[in-house]
Amino acid sequence: MIEKQVVVIGAGISGLKTASELYAKGCKSCVVLEARDRIGGRLYTAPGYNNNKYDLGASWHHDTLVNGLFLEEVGLPKEERAAFVFDDDAMIVFDKERGRVDQDPEMALEVLMEELLKFNQLQYFEDLDVKDVNYFETIVKYLYERRDLLTDEQIQYLPQVARFMESWHGIDWKTQSSKCLEIAHQGRNAFVLNYDTIVKRVGSAIPQEWIKMETEVSEIDSEGKKVVVTTKTGEKYACDYVVVTIPQSILAHSLKPEPRKGRIEFNPPLASGIQDAFKKTHYGSLGKVVFEFKDCCWSRKRSRVLSLGSSTPDITAKVRDADDLASLVEKLNLDTQYNFKNGESWDFPLFFVNLAKHTDIPSLILLMADPLTAYIESLPDKEKLYEYFEPILTKVLQALDCTEPIVKDFDDKSTSDGISSPVLKNIMTTKWTLDEYALGAYSACEPGDDPMDLILSLTNNQTSKIRFAGEHTIMDGAGCVYGAWGSGKREAAFIADKLGNFGSHSKTL
Amino acid sequence: MIEKQVVVIGAGISGLKTASELYAKGCKSCVVLEARDRIGGRLYTAPGYNNNKYDLGASWHHDTLVNGLFLEEVGLPKEERAAFVFDDDAMIVFDKERGRVDQDPEMALEVLMEELLKFNQLQYFEDLDVKDVNYFETIVKYLYERRDLLTDEQIQYLPQVARFMESWHGIDWKTQSSKCLEIAHQGRNAFVLNYDTIVKRVGSAIPQEWIKMETEVSEIDSEGKKVVVTTKTGEKYACDYVVVTIPQSILAHSLKPEPRKGRIEFNPPLASGIQDAFKKTHYGSLGKVVFEFKDCCWSRKRSRVLSLGSSTPDITAKVRDADDLASLVEKLNLDTQYNFKNGESWDFPLFFVNLAKHTDIPSLILLMADPLTAYIESLPDKEKLYEYFEPILTKVLQALDCTEPIVKDFDDKSTSDGISSPVLKNIMTTKWTLDEYALGAYSACEPGDDPMDLILSLTNNQTSKIRFAGEHTIMDGAGCVYGAWGSGKREAAFIADKLGNFGSHSKTL
Repeated sequence: MIEKQVVVIGAGISGLKTASELYAKGCKSCVVLEARDRIGGRLYTAPGYNNNKYDLGASWHHDTLVNGLFLEEVGLPKEERAAFVFDDDAMIVFDKERGRVDQDPEMALEVLMEELLKFNQLQYFEDLDVKDVNYFETIVKYLYERRDLLTDEQIQYLPQVARFMESWHGIDWKTQSSKCLEIAHQGRNAFVLNYDTIVKRVGSAIPQEWIKMETEVSEIDSEGKKVVVTTKTGEKYACDYVVVTIPQSILAHSLKPEPRKGRIEFNPPLASGIQDAFKKTHYGSLGKVVFEFKDCCWSRKRSRVLSLGSSTPDITAKVRDADDLASLVEKLNLDTQYNFKNGESWDFPLFFVNLAKHTDIPSLILLMADPLTAYIESLPDKEKLYEYFEPILTKVLQALDCTEPIVKDFDDKSTSDGISSPVLKNIMTTKWTLDEYALGAYSACEPGDDPMDLILSLTNNQTSKIRFAGEHTIMDGAGCVYGAWGSGKREAAFIADKLGNFGSHSKTL
Repeated sequence: MIEKQVVVIGAGISGLKTASELYAKGCKSCVVLEARDRIGGRLYTAPGYNNNKYDLGASWHHDTLVNGLFLEEVGLPKEERAAFVFDDDAMIVFDKERGRVDQDPEMALEVLMEELLKFNQLQYFEDLDVKDVNYFETIVKYLYERRDLLTDEQIQYLPQVARFMESWHGIDWKTQSSKCLEIAHQGRNAFVLNYDTIVKRVGSAIPQEWIKMETEVSEIDSEGKKVVVTTKTGEKYACDYVVVTIPQSILAHSLKPEPRKGRIEFNPPLASGIQDAFKKTHYGSLGKVVFEFKDCCWSRKRSRVLSLGSSTPDITAKVRDADDLASLVEKLNLDTQYNFKNGESWDFPLFFVNLAKHTDIPSLILLMADPLTAYIESLPDKEKLYEYFEPILTKVLQALDCTEPIVKDFDDKSTSDGISSPVLKNIMTTKWTLDEYALGAYSACEPGDDPMDLILSLTNNQTSKIRFAGEHTIMDGAGCVYGAWGSGKREAAFIADKLGNFGSHSKTL
């Protein structure tokens, strides 16, 4: 039995921050148990073609007016912090058939999008008991109620534009809760180059011997005076506090009896409040695909392109002719069934980051939502990925003023010197849905969910020796890196307070 | 002594709505006393060149998701309602020296503007006791605190872009409260063509013999059982309830002893709560100038153009070099003193509506804020107006792709047939600051103000026989036509309830 003051489970940003704060506050005895062979968790910077690197996990500082991690970074000397660029600008938006639909004064879809979000907000603001429905239904309701105030083209294209929200939530419009749809941006977003610098910095503020890699935890026993943490290989740690930072998706398996990778057996079982809360929370899968080109032969003027899911004027006709909302929802629901498993590329809105706008890297990064993510992540190779995305990628390049056909050159054999075509060298995808220690990306809300329940049940037991941290355990920065980071800070402060600041004067990182 | 159940003072939209609702609810005995020779008050549709007409008062339906008047209009047959167009679209924004600054991915001023508004909101959200300062100071604070995250051009141009808010509040950035800055848009804005149709419709739902034009009220005596309303010419009305809908600016004079046009003497004086509340409320002057051309020789693509107040790179240098906020505020305050009284045209942001985008009318309507409004409204003639605005008007036309010089032809003498130049036929301005029954446009907030105090003090006395309605007496739609209209509805409902629905079954308009 190894004795520690604190055991931290998981070396993602919340676990690393917990441990670094504990160390700074004087803790002498702590271990961070990490199942993977690397630190960072769902922050993961991967190498690609030509030594370029990409964040396949989180890649922005969000809410930069209030983002504590960002504000800490900004206060550091430039050589110690990760570079970043503010990359919010007006999106290029296009539809397969019609072409550009953004900044069109006749459609004003940006203005309509704002009105739709306000419409959604008002329906819950005006009556707290209004039933939560999926985002798709809210969109249809808006179209139905406001159809006399909308043009035919607005009715056709707004729904697909509105699906841009999928890129935030990581789940599709038919799964997304309307009540939890709104995202209150607290300042601009900054694209990080890259998060590995931050992971390394936070990680290096911990004695390196504290971190045990490839060490999966299988059980937490809190029946005795000390909490006993048992690893898969049978090591036992007795500690005053354990901080559980494993993803919500993995923690959910503790409620089910089936053994599986990463699952922790709690003895006694997790409190009933936590068990109930898990019924009102879900988990999404924002996925990414990186298209790496030899050179940038497209416009660097704008940093964001949204390719819309396909639509037809038929939608407008049905909205105009509808006699009641329920049957309209039903009809449009049928009309918008997905077909991506049969190779249909235009089922989903796809959000592209034009990396060449802010860096020297000639790559496009695509963001997509579940269930497309799970499908794409399961494709076996680059050829299959290319086959699926080729029609859209071609149109994205056209939207960026590059009309030459794509030359595929995964084998690096093309004698492409001097040609002006975009030469595609590599495609990378995330694998979060297949990753048994992640099972997706971050918390998400389906209709009827209330994420507050989980947050409160995991954090408001003021006597528990089992603490929780991570993006799913905090309101300020929920689902974000800085939220996870802040939750680590919170738990370290809690434990330091309970353990009398480890007998030392408290220092703050 | 003439006996009435209700006397309504003022035939603006709130007074007309009060009376029409009273009539619909069965009131048999009511009089509307209007000082002017027309109904409508600060809704005023005036004729111009070529029989075109313009709303020199309010001209939009705001908040069309919740705007009760708009929703009522939409429910009417087309021939009974006023036409409207949704005219929100991305503004063309230009600076005198630099040219276009909107939709510029390098500056992203639209995104920064959002961040600034959020920054402002957060400073009061985080601490309710934070001192209210003028909007100018908040802008400087933002630039100072975020300067490391802003480019030189962003620091130079953001302040002038941020002054677009002046077009909403009708007062300039150095007068505007930061705490009351935010406008929560509840849906798109619809430009009304024209409000006279609505005034006429609401007015025609009242027996015409109820309305007494050119009848100024001088005294309200509520010491006896009946309230006695005395007109300037000595007529006396005894009534159960009086509804006072005169503008806040005129009502304020009831607190001062000096006689003046429109002033009402209250006996007993207005409650001390009302007197106190007037210390925490102000009044603004959104002004308009209409430039009427012979033909439209400019682009009809976009409906809004914002011409910025001038700025220099010197601002950026001062922000970068500042050692503390207070001295920076002082310096920039000096640098941004107004000089419009000496003919400086680039002191203020000027917001232009391109009427030709949505109608056949070849006119540009300019909106401006106090103190510029008062100055412009006091200019003696079209020649002086043209002299002041000519440089800006020229640039606005250039921004709309019209580069020919303006031909001034107020006398209608120019043989301008066949020439492609813009031929300026007429200039009209509002006169609200000179109008002794208006003294400006609508309520506004200076630092430290709290508009709730006035609203509550005017409306929460549940026993008073003296009722108040108007844009300054209501939260939902404060400062808007639909707010005024809604306040009339509210007071009619109150009185009908107190008077037992006039012995009849209640009907609703």
